Amino acid sequence: MKIIAAKKILKANDQLAEENRAGFNAAGVYCVNVVGSPGAGKTTLLEALFTALKDRLRPAVIEGDIAGSIDAARIEKLGVPVVQINTQGACHLDANMIAAAAADFDLAAIDLLVIENIGNLVCTAGFDLGEHLRIVVLSTAEGDDKAAKYPAIFQGSQALFITKADLLPHLNFNAERITADFKRLAPQSEILQVAAIQGDGIPPAADWLAGKCAATLR
Amino acid sequence: MKIIAAKKILKANDQLAEENRAGFNAAGVYCVNVVGSPGAGKTTLLEALFTALKDRLRPAVIEGDIAGSIDAARIEKLGVPVVQINTQGACHLDANMIAAAAADFDLAAIDLLVIENIGNLVCTAGFDLGEHLRIVVLSTAEGDDKAAKYPAIFQGSQALFITKADLLPHLNFNAERITADFKRLAPQSEILQVAAIQGDGIPPAADWLAGKCAATLR
Repeated sequence: MKIIAAKKILKANDQLAEENRAGFNAAGVYCVNVVGSPGAGKTTLLEALFTALKDRLRPAVIEGDIAGSIDAARIEKLGVPVVQINTQGACHLDANMIAAAAADFDLAAIDLLVIENIGNLVCTAGFDLGEHLRIVVLSTAEGDDKAAKYPAIFQGSQALFITKADLLPHLNFNAERITADFKRLAPQSEILQVAAIQGDGIPPAADWLAGKCAATLR
Repeated sequence: MKIIAAKKILKANDQLAEENRAGFNAAGVYCVNVVGSPGAGKTTLLEALFTALKDRLRPAVIEGDIAGSIDAARIEKLGVPVVQINTQGACHLDANMIAAAAADFDLAAIDLLVIENIGNLVCTAGFDLGEHLRIVVLSTAEGDDKAAKYPAIFQGSQALFITKADLLPHLNFNAERITADFKRLAPQSEILQVAAIQGDGIPPAADWLAGKCAATLR
């Protein structure tokens, strides 16, 4: 009987993630892993960014959900190719799932592959999927203490998108607090603030993402 | 070497949970497990309910967090006894942790023991802690599709608190959609709507909780 320790599984995941990344590099595909709480506004952010980037980049999406395909249907409406992963209860995506899902795309026809992870600020933190960039999405309504309370997910992310900025007048949200906490955990990272439904902050965010994509793949 | 399957661990958890519940019953303590996403407003709801119930019930709290004691400090300010569990990365509380934490209280001096679980709409679903009631907390800002997307946690809860109702004028939140989805998953459950900071809906919610407590322990 073979017994596999959790540490070894994570190591195996890291190796698979490296293979995914090598495959994305070879195909000229920039890959982004988007994490955040349920209801942080991940899908709405993607809808806004894809609309802003539609003449500049060819995106595709892997949607991770416990159940259903609500978000995948929203992405499909934009004409963006999408593969839905249903984890049937599992709390995060792993590199193996991404390898299987990515095989369903024609990578030659894609510039930007976005993985929308399960809504979970805890378990997604430990799993490299082979992405080039991990973005953590936090809505203003979630509060300014989340980096302090869920440090691992923030520490391993290279960018923070603060969403639902339109709600700021109605909330007690201190942007300086979350900025300070995040910069302490991830000093080299960037912070962008948007109100995706209203479009506020979307043009510079789209430029920023297109720039990351071009810089990595040139 | 002994190898324990995950199913057996859950079975062991269920057994420990029953022991916890028997202990709470014997001590005349009503136990509530509060689950929800990060930033759903769990602590703010508890602050409002405890303030409303302060002359009627003697509460205590077990705070579950990945790191830190931000919420425990808030509860302590109300003069409510609190024990902080730091899971150091683990994504849910289990019955064993609750047994250890509950041993730190004088149960004879408590009527209501509230467990504020880790902010996680996925992993907390599988673990009975020995509570009498599980409340799932969802903020209006998280969106009305969450019961459809995270069914397990809603299915196993006996009440849904919709929080941050003050934001409704600024959101596209369909209360009928979440109500229908939740009632399909948990037909016998109850739905309460509050704006905890403003106090809207808190008096009837406090009455409801005091009633549940009295009905179970009489």
